[in-house]
Amino acid sequence: MKVADIMTCPVVTIHNTAPVAAAAKLMQQRQIQALIVPPSYEQDAYGIVTVEDIVGKVIAFGRNPQHLRVFEIMTKPCIVLNPDLGVEYAAQLLTRYQLHSAPVIQKELLGLLSVTDILARSDALEQPQELLLAHKIEELSAIARQVCQTQGPGSEACAKAWAAVDALQAESAHQQAKPLEQTAFEAFCDEFPEALRDRDLDAWCSG
Amino acid sequence: MKVADIMTCPVVTIHNTAPVAAAAKLMQQRQIQALIVPPSYEQDAYGIVTVEDIVGKVIAFGRNPQHLRVFEIMTKPCIVLNPDLGVEYAAQLLTRYQLHSAPVIQKELLGLLSVTDILARSDALEQPQELLLAHKIEELSAIARQVCQTQGPGSEACAKAWAAVDALQAESAHQQAKPLEQTAFEAFCDEFPEALRDRDLDAWCSG
Amino acid sequence: MKVADIMTCPVVTIHNTAPVAAAAKLMQQRQIQALIVPPSYEQDAYGIVTVEDIVGKVIAFGRNPQHLRVFEIMTKPCIVLNPDLGVEYAAQLLTRYQLHSAPVIQKELLGLLSVTDILARSDALEQPQELLLAHKIEELSAIARQVCQTQGPGSEACAKAWAAVDALQAESAHQQAKPLEQTAFEAFCDEFPEALRDRDLDAWCSG
Amino acid sequence: MKVADIMTCPVVTIHNTAPVAAAAKLMQQRQIQALIVPPSYEQDAYGIVTVEDIVGKVIAFGRNPQHLRVFEIMTKPCIVLNPDLGVEYAAQLLTRYQLHSAPVIQKELLGLLSVTDILARSDALEQPQELLLAHKIEELSAIARQVCQTQGPGSEACAKAWAAVDALQAESAHQQAKPLEQTAFEAFCDEFPEALRDRDLDAWCSG
Amino acid sequence: MKVADIMTCPVVTIHNTAPVAAAAKLMQQRQIQALIVPPSYEQDAYGIVTVEDIVGKVIAFGRNPQHLRVFEIMTKPCIVLNPDLGVEYAAQLLTRYQLHSAPVIQKELLGLLSVTDILARSDALEQPQELLLAHKIEELSAIARQVCQTQGPGSEACAKAWAAVDALQAESAHQQAKPLEQTAFEAFCDEFPEALRDRDLDAWCSG
Amino acid sequence: MKVADIMTCPVVTIHNTAPVAAAAKLMQQRQIQALIVPPSYEQDAYGIVTVEDIVGKVIAFGRNPQHLRVFEIMTKPCIVLNPDLGVEYAAQLLTRYQLHSAPVIQKELLGLLSVTDILARSDALEQPQELLLAHKIEELSAIARQVCQTQGPGSEACAKAWAAVDALQAESAHQQAKPLEQTAFEAFCDEFPEALRDRDLDAWCSG
Repeated sequence: MKVADIMTCPVVTIHNTAPVAAAAKLMQQRQIQALIVPPSYEQDAYGIVTVEDIVGKVIAFGRNPQHLRVFEIMTKPCIVLNPDLGVEYAAQLLTRYQLHSAPVIQKELLGLLSVTDILARSDALEQPQELLLAHKIEELSAIARQVCQTQGPGSEACAKAWAAVDALQAESAHQQAKPLEQTAFEAFCDEFPEALRDRDLDAWCSG
Repeated sequence: MKVADIMTCPVVTIHNTAPVAAAAKLMQQRQIQALIVPPSYEQDAYGIVTVEDIVGKVIAFGRNPQHLRVFEIMTKPCIVLNPDLGVEYAAQLLTRYQLHSAPVIQKELLGLLSVTDILARSDALEQPQELLLAHKIEELSAIARQVCQTQGPGSEACAKAWAAVDALQAESAHQQAKPLEQTAFEAFCDEFPEALRDRDLDAWCSG
Repeated sequence: MKVADIMTCPVVTIHNTAPVAAAAKLMQQRQIQALIVPPSYEQDAYGIVTVEDIVGKVIAFGRNPQHLRVFEIMTKPCIVLNPDLGVEYAAQLLTRYQLHSAPVIQKELLGLLSVTDILARSDALEQPQELLLAHKIEELSAIARQVCQTQGPGSEACAKAWAAVDALQAESAHQQAKPLEQTAFEAFCDEFPEALRDRDLDAWCSG
Repeated sequence: MKVADIMTCPVVTIHNTAPVAAAAKLMQQRQIQALIVPPSYEQDAYGIVTVEDIVGKVIAFGRNPQHLRVFEIMTKPCIVLNPDLGVEYAAQLLTRYQLHSAPVIQKELLGLLSVTDILARSDALEQPQELLLAHKIEELSAIARQVCQTQGPGSEACAKAWAAVDALQAESAHQQAKPLEQTAFEAFCDEFPEALRDRDLDAWCSG
Repeated sequence: MKVADIMTCPVVTIHNTAPVAAAAKLMQQRQIQALIVPPSYEQDAYGIVTVEDIVGKVIAFGRNPQHLRVFEIMTKPCIVLNPDLGVEYAAQLLTRYQLHSAPVIQKELLGLLSVTDILARSDALEQPQELLLAHKIEELSAIARQVCQTQGPGSEACAKAWAAVDALQAESAHQQAKPLEQTAFEAFCDEFPEALRDRDLDAWCSG
Repeated sequence: MKVADIMTCPVVTIHNTAPVAAAAKLMQQRQIQALIVPPSYEQDAYGIVTVEDIVGKVIAFGRNPQHLRVFEIMTKPCIVLNPDLGVEYAAQLLTRYQLHSAPVIQKELLGLLSVTDILARSDALEQPQELLLAHKIEELSAIARQVCQTQGPGSEACAKAWAAVDALQAESAHQQAKPLEQTAFEAFCDEFPEALRDRDLDAWCSG
């Protein structure tokens, strides 16, 4: 599941010159936690104003929301999310930077994603990524074993097929913050010493 | 307005041994952002588990909510709010420590207060504290002037009445993070040099 | 041991309008690390001014403590401690938020607790909580085994008795930031499959 | 000037399973500060591994870079930049989150932008944004005055033209973290009380 | 006043293998807030263990201080202070990095400085740096005026004398976080346009 | 390898009154990431101005570098490094406090060390500290065994020799953030119960 599947849209936007009182009323009426402040000129960035901004920068200091404007309390530029990003990664970005919501942008404003949306609409609790990745690793391992049987354990195709398994294993280990004793390919190499183990620098990188 | 006036109650609580999946379902069903974990023994503290905990510690790392328990992701002990605290101070505490919600406790669990509650239910936007304090300062100044006229500018009662004004002025300046050039009493002293200016250490403190 | 057992009282308080120089002299004379600033009006909060505030906000910037007042450097509202809180939880709260001291309040100001007080006066080093909890878990387990024997492994009383053990185990695991492979009740259930395992949502929560 | 104008491309990428020693050699050979770790499957995110990661997570703890892999020290997901973002906003995002570099992504990986690139290649020092915005505000103000003269101070076109000025003024004030006593339109309204001041909520927002 | 004038010495040190219980007892007996852990081999660094470490890493988690050793809770390497550093700068370093104490080292361990030492023993409260610097700026300005009168406003000696004033003014402005509209030399140049204003890059730097 | 072996020197310094534009040009011309601001008077501290300061405090807010001076954006006092410190500890200090560079000072300014210098010039990647320490521990253990054989397992010399091993083991465990089940001496004591185990407080500390 990706960000685009569970984001809220359309997004409610507000002018940067609007009084904070207007932003507060809008949030109360629509029962939303954040408003997006659109760019004012080319190369300008998106801003965001949240319930936390109003409570923490206006109410907390006893200030008058009629005399303050949105631009005085908004966060701009703000962290934006890509619509194609997996929900798990969006969850990491939002919580690592202590954000409740972030705009979803690709060339234009597409939606808004909050941690509440992630809890309410994603299938991440029913289908945890660790199970999905484990399943995918098994699938790719089966393919790799078959490729190596057909084309030989020393073939480039075999090495490539195991590299795909290794990448997924590494990602799974990274996500769970676990070390990885031995990759699937290394285990295969133990068994078939004739396998192609590329060790030069160029094999690891591109660009 | 104080915390007790706008908090949500009763509070939904959950066992520390419950699976995270149960906590998530409960939040979705009741549309709430946080559950309180009650103490397990005398002198034990209250804990809290929030939407952010589930999104940031479970979903973000692709973990299985059936195999994790509430105690593995809760925050405990948590910052608690006093029911008598003014809403503005609660707003400061919650946002300074980046909390969305906190339990309200006085001997026992009384309620839960979130930043959303503060935006939705407090009158802080209609009646900003800075206006309320300004009004109170004016009232107390009028009283002080009268007391000093009746009892004399050099009387202890006069000094005491102005001290109350000064304390409010200082609080107002603190809340708005402004310096205070001259307190009301100092202005009064400029006019009436015979006023009792206590300058010894004991006058400033007690205990 | 709880906060009330080791806190310092009475607490020395200071006016919010006092010059910082008076606060510094008071701390030096009494050899204390923090002064409490009492509320100035109903619903007002407690504030605190510490050695760190004077060193970090006045001395560090070469400012004149005769011309600055307490309200310009105090922290308000401040995190408060409950007198009934266990010393271990107070230790966590103070150090998690990098505080040296906090006022102990329940309706009124009761005392002040510092990390130095915790080191000097608590028995937490002689009687570490991990040993106390391990001992309590054993006690409650013995009781649970007895209840289940008397009333039957499928009785509600048996389930309840084990739930109390589980809650303590979870708390102990939480405190030591360890996972908990299997709770005591789950181990019991492995042996006695007829035990009452409540699995519906309502069993985990209340409110 | 925008991100796309000064970013470095093509970007050097590295596998998540590569040993840290390979990443270090690559950085030394190419004299670069960061490598991008490409996604391993659909909906996967981009990662980044930097000089700081190698120095702070490997060298600082005396660990062996032959036995560690890139995925164990990379940051993933990472904050990404939009190619159309103004250089000033990119500068804010990078420094607010204490990042030295970030990938520039729009559907695909387009480049890498570092704070060093911003200092070396942008024209932000020669043409500070505050002068550019001040100039633009003047231009738009001249236009607004003309529109209002032609179409009347009470026309919708006049109000709209001033709104554009106000938005830029607000953005300029926001960037410099200054309050804005009176917007250009408010000044105009003081002079021409017949101007159209829209005050209802809908005028401030959309969506 | 400098660090060497008010630091505590000799410093109490403890082995990195000592049990935490021994460190705690030592702190209680000597009534000190921190112990220094000396290097174990050439190029090794100094470590520090504080009351906060024992309260926050041992007591807070209910751990047994008999089974933990100093190296498991100490901070190493730690920020060190130079004996010649002015007390104001030491105050800034300690409070900016939220430290209560730091070792004073120059080739060898010379002492320990805490924020409490700064409050108790420095003269920073009686003789605030802002007054000292203001006084020094006046003195140097008088000298500069005299030099320029003797040697001519266009002489190198005159320019150099004013540069010394400017540097102090800048430092004073930096310490108080104030901008500096016009330096003393610029004011002089307004009056004597023949003054030597070096504007090339080399004049500003060396090395 | 120590800081003095890989630091950059001589260091480029800049006046605190120089315009930010001059600092930027200097960094661009010399391709350096940081300039040191020397003290202006006795007991004054060193300051540092970095690429991050110019990008994050000037460009990010669209400010004019001709009108800002170095003292307005520099960090002062700054964390300094000791020339004798091991490279690993310097790596820890720099990355723990999120610094790219720091001045190396011992009585006077000796050099500048950046994380890039550590990656490019140290041998920490080729000779990881964990291997070096493991080797040293083996060497010292061999010596200790010999000493104890010659002088007897109950001799003071034997205890002292093992204490040196223990200290290194503890340092190695600390660096890798691992617990240490049993020290080398404790293992020795298991075998030779007659060994001198000093357990009184004085044995652990000095001063």
